[in-house]
Amino acid sequence: MAIHHFTPQHYYNAMGTYPPVLRIADGDTVITKTADAMGHDEHDQPVAKRGNPQTGPFYVEGAEQGDTLAVTFDRLYPNRRIGYTNGRLAANVVDPEYVREMPMQSPWCEWELDLENGTATFAKPETKLGRLTLPLRPMLGCFGVAPAGEQAISTATSGPHGGNMDYKGFEQGATVYFPVEAEGALLFVGDGHAIQGDGEIVGTGIEISFDVQFTVKVLKGKRIFWPRAENETHIITVGNARPLDQALQHATTELTRWLLEDYGLDPVGAHTLLGQCIEYEIGNVFDPAYTVACKVAKSILRQFAP
Amino acid sequence: MAIHHFTPQHYYNAMGTYPPVLRIADGDTVITKTADAMGHDEHDQPVAKRGNPQTGPFYVEGAEQGDTLAVTFDRLYPNRRIGYTNGRLAANVVDPEYVREMPMQSPWCEWELDLENGTATFAKPETKLGRLTLPLRPMLGCFGVAPAGEQAISTATSGPHGGNMDYKGFEQGATVYFPVEAEGALLFVGDGHAIQGDGEIVGTGIEISFDVQFTVKVLKGKRIFWPRAENETHIITVGNARPLDQALQHATTELTRWLLEDYGLDPVGAHTLLGQCIEYEIGNVFDPAYTVACKVAKSILRQFAP
Amino acid sequence: MAIHHFTPQHYYNAMGTYPPVLRIADGDTVITKTADAMGHDEHDQPVAKRGNPQTGPFYVEGAEQGDTLAVTFDRLYPNRRIGYTNGRLAANVVDPEYVREMPMQSPWCEWELDLENGTATFAKPETKLGRLTLPLRPMLGCFGVAPAGEQAISTATSGPHGGNMDYKGFEQGATVYFPVEAEGALLFVGDGHAIQGDGEIVGTGIEISFDVQFTVKVLKGKRIFWPRAENETHIITVGNARPLDQALQHATTELTRWLLEDYGLDPVGAHTLLGQCIEYEIGNVFDPAYTVACKVAKSILRQFAP
Amino acid sequence: MAIHHFTPQHYYNAMGTYPPVLRIADGDTVITKTADAMGHDEHDQPVAKRGNPQTGPFYVEGAEQGDTLAVTFDRLYPNRRIGYTNGRLAANVVDPEYVREMPMQSPWCEWELDLENGTATFAKPETKLGRLTLPLRPMLGCFGVAPAGEQAISTATSGPHGGNMDYKGFEQGATVYFPVEAEGALLFVGDGHAIQGDGEIVGTGIEISFDVQFTVKVLKGKRIFWPRAENETHIITVGNARPLDQALQHATTELTRWLLEDYGLDPVGAHTLLGQCIEYEIGNVFDPAYTVACKVAKSILRQFAP
Repeated sequence: MAIHHFTPQHYYNAMGTYPPVLRIADGDTVITKTADAMGHDEHDQPVAKRGNPQTGPFYVEGAEQGDTLAVTFDRLYPNRRIGYTNGRLAANVVDPEYVREMPMQSPWCEWELDLENGTATFAKPETKLGRLTLPLRPMLGCFGVAPAGEQAISTATSGPHGGNMDYKGFEQGATVYFPVEAEGALLFVGDGHAIQGDGEIVGTGIEISFDVQFTVKVLKGKRIFWPRAENETHIITVGNARPLDQALQHATTELTRWLLEDYGLDPVGAHTLLGQCIEYEIGNVFDPAYTVACKVAKSILRQFAP
Repeated sequence: MAIHHFTPQHYYNAMGTYPPVLRIADGDTVITKTADAMGHDEHDQPVAKRGNPQTGPFYVEGAEQGDTLAVTFDRLYPNRRIGYTNGRLAANVVDPEYVREMPMQSPWCEWELDLENGTATFAKPETKLGRLTLPLRPMLGCFGVAPAGEQAISTATSGPHGGNMDYKGFEQGATVYFPVEAEGALLFVGDGHAIQGDGEIVGTGIEISFDVQFTVKVLKGKRIFWPRAENETHIITVGNARPLDQALQHATTELTRWLLEDYGLDPVGAHTLLGQCIEYEIGNVFDPAYTVACKVAKSILRQFAP
Repeated sequence: MAIHHFTPQHYYNAMGTYPPVLRIADGDTVITKTADAMGHDEHDQPVAKRGNPQTGPFYVEGAEQGDTLAVTFDRLYPNRRIGYTNGRLAANVVDPEYVREMPMQSPWCEWELDLENGTATFAKPETKLGRLTLPLRPMLGCFGVAPAGEQAISTATSGPHGGNMDYKGFEQGATVYFPVEAEGALLFVGDGHAIQGDGEIVGTGIEISFDVQFTVKVLKGKRIFWPRAENETHIITVGNARPLDQALQHATTELTRWLLEDYGLDPVGAHTLLGQCIEYEIGNVFDPAYTVACKVAKSILRQFAP
Repeated sequence: MAIHHFTPQHYYNAMGTYPPVLRIADGDTVITKTADAMGHDEHDQPVAKRGNPQTGPFYVEGAEQGDTLAVTFDRLYPNRRIGYTNGRLAANVVDPEYVREMPMQSPWCEWELDLENGTATFAKPETKLGRLTLPLRPMLGCFGVAPAGEQAISTATSGPHGGNMDYKGFEQGATVYFPVEAEGALLFVGDGHAIQGDGEIVGTGIEISFDVQFTVKVLKGKRIFWPRAENETHIITVGNARPLDQALQHATTELTRWLLEDYGLDPVGAHTLLGQCIEYEIGNVFDPAYTVACKVAKSILRQFAP
């Protein structure tokens, strides 16, 4: 259970079976940093190519195809005091005819972060929002493992391997599970958001560089099909696809499997529970693949679980 | 501001320009009852045709095309002790190939309600859930006004006029706004759910008859395009369409309009606020038209609103 | 087998259970006229409300819920020399971001018809197309029967009852089949297009008034779920829904049923035939419900059909 | 203008920036072979991994990012006498609830090819189709170039780089255009279908090994966004995405650009032409990304083109 301090020297803009930057053991912890979505580091200096550059890949010993990799985010926090957002809604989240009524220009906006008090304040340009101040909710927008079939998938998009899911539930304290497809799993992390609304509908959260600490665990022989997660209160599954309907189908199917396989439920029990207790969240409706999360409260599962 | 006690004698399974059952004034309150989705009343006796039979229509004096009708739910509560759910996931909410793995039979399930303590307990058939007990969250699944163009639209589906939206935010304390298309608005109410998960993915909430008390208000000359709502904490808009992507576009466009028109925001301000603060909820992914709600917290709006 | 000459006096902009304008017997023929989509007649004079006003409804004696109504278009031809089109692509048929690059104005265009030689020539405004001349392919964009459940559905959209399908296969010589839901079926016809591209992607065909002659036949006890059709060369089914994927599912399912029920095929045979021989056509991607047609050549069916 | 005879020794199941198997000059012709989708060669012997294994990549000298690669299929023909199809409709092409009514088993079917007369005859298993005989229409299901950003994309799916488009218009005589993203373009070819219905709705055409002859041409500085094609009668664009609606948007946008850039049309002219003359075809609705083609007849373009 070693703790590794890792400083990235280069970054990847796709997730693939690249040479690992560090080999770690099952149970190890890594303390590292991520550049922001535009490739800027904690000094807001360019260190990587824009488009969610990734720190990694980290090779986890013992992880093989057919296993599951668990990644617990021990710490996720912005490491500089300025963040950026896009200032115009994406064309695909409004009625097509309404696109004509939207601004032609898409301004780039600045936010000032108070890291001690955990807030972000809108700074530029001037708008009727004034100095709107919001509580931080730090999350990673893009992270995952090497995809199946020796593919290399752009960090613009997502899939069963994770990637650019932009789901605000992926925050400190969460454990995220990925299907392992390549030897060593090859974990990547990047794209911190200080805050992000559901759907990432302007195409960004508050984009910023992060300090990241995570701990890995290999679940040998555990086979899953889509990313899963859990936090203190919920179990969660995630589907990545277009349209939203299909992302929702992936997530719902995966959560049904989880209840049937690990919670001892029969089909009528599992379906009934989901029917009355499921909660859906929309990760993003901006990226090439959209992301839908669904979850069930652990307090409900405790009523009947073994 | 009269209070009307109204006992339904017949019900409608579509929303259209039918002869009103009661004429009420702007500001009046109605205390009435709704049958459940199968057409059973508070004694679980058949009184209406199955398929979300509606109490109404109520003619609101002074409401004309181009106005908005506000309906506040003063009270929404089940009025009997047994509710029903479907026990199998709808085929369209899981991966298409997974449909083959699901049960061929769709059992009908019973829940016992403790109206004093506000809980529902799963009673039949026997499953691994045992006597799962959940807190009530009463809501109306299907209600709305007469649609545009003298249409009569089945209560199976929904549209700009409301209808079968199956969104759990439509609960006691909420005020819902509809675009008025017919003289008198012609308000219908029905389809109470004691509890419903997001998406109504088994095709039902806990279906039950309700006591309903509501108060109406006409906003003269106020023009909206999709249902809006507000409660103590949020302003909300709703889009009804397939696929989910389009329902989301309708809701997002309507919320953008609301911020621009009534909160004094400029486009960059409105888009930025939505980008970092919007919350999406999925009403239903079961009915012919799906329902997506989006909302913003009033606590945020208070930072800059006039 | 009477032939009725019917001159419309008023028109409907929804399809519902309205009082019939004419009662006809099974086997009868009707010769009538339709106004264009804007409500103009053969003299280009306004006679009806815009939005695909319908001639009818025609009550067909003997037609009851659970039957199928067959409508053969004996003659469909424009009856004036000027037609109109919209001159800008609908926002929903291009990439959302591309909407910003399209013209802000949507010009109204005129076409001159040569009814003797069967061509239409682009006349106004001036464009680089010059006097583009195209062969006529007359079709009805919007027609159908009263929908289920005593609904009244706007002629802007479509469903199992037909409606605004805007499919160019609905032309002279075709026989179209509808599920009967109301007593007498209640047939409506309207919305002639002299020519229309696939998808009706500018929102119009060449809109024009028509002479229409059709013959009806009741198929007692024949139950179908979506419109079907046949012409000299193909059998055809049509699905009306959004997104296109769902319209395609409806059409494909209906064609599968048809092969299994009426052509004596086993599932492997039917699926194999469709897999290698199905042809899809896109009716419209403009209206609230999109339309997908699928078809199989009769020359193939003759190889094994009884 | 050399002619290269190339015999593949190994195959790729993804399209990426792999070491080229052959370097060819602009204008050269290649005569080679492709294995079938299951990885079987002209003797029906396994030579590659299943999943549309590709012959190539071919490095085309002078092709760089920002150029367009033109590939003309001089010859595409099956090179053995047995082909295979799947015998059950994919779950995603029928109504979700109808999936429950379909066969649980998906039989593998054999077809005998008469290469001299150009027909395929259904051979096994026994069905009510008997020995259904269809004319060959040979096409390549999966081919393309290295995608952008050094990605490696599975041959199960498709994108701007081509890939598994399964569109029956990609046949002998067609010239297909791809955006070049990697140095040398890196062209791959594979996945021959002796026949395929629209949509590839059983998940296969008649899968078979092919003789392939193609000629390349580099269009320096010509920038396109999606695959384009032309044959004797039409110009064609292709969009690859889910849902169908988005694939159609990509194709329609690309065809609009083509008319504006290369045919001298103004927006109203281009939009009007597409509105009344566009033809849509559905490539596949089976693969992870669906494919929609749209096209315009050259006979129409000749009326006004320079």
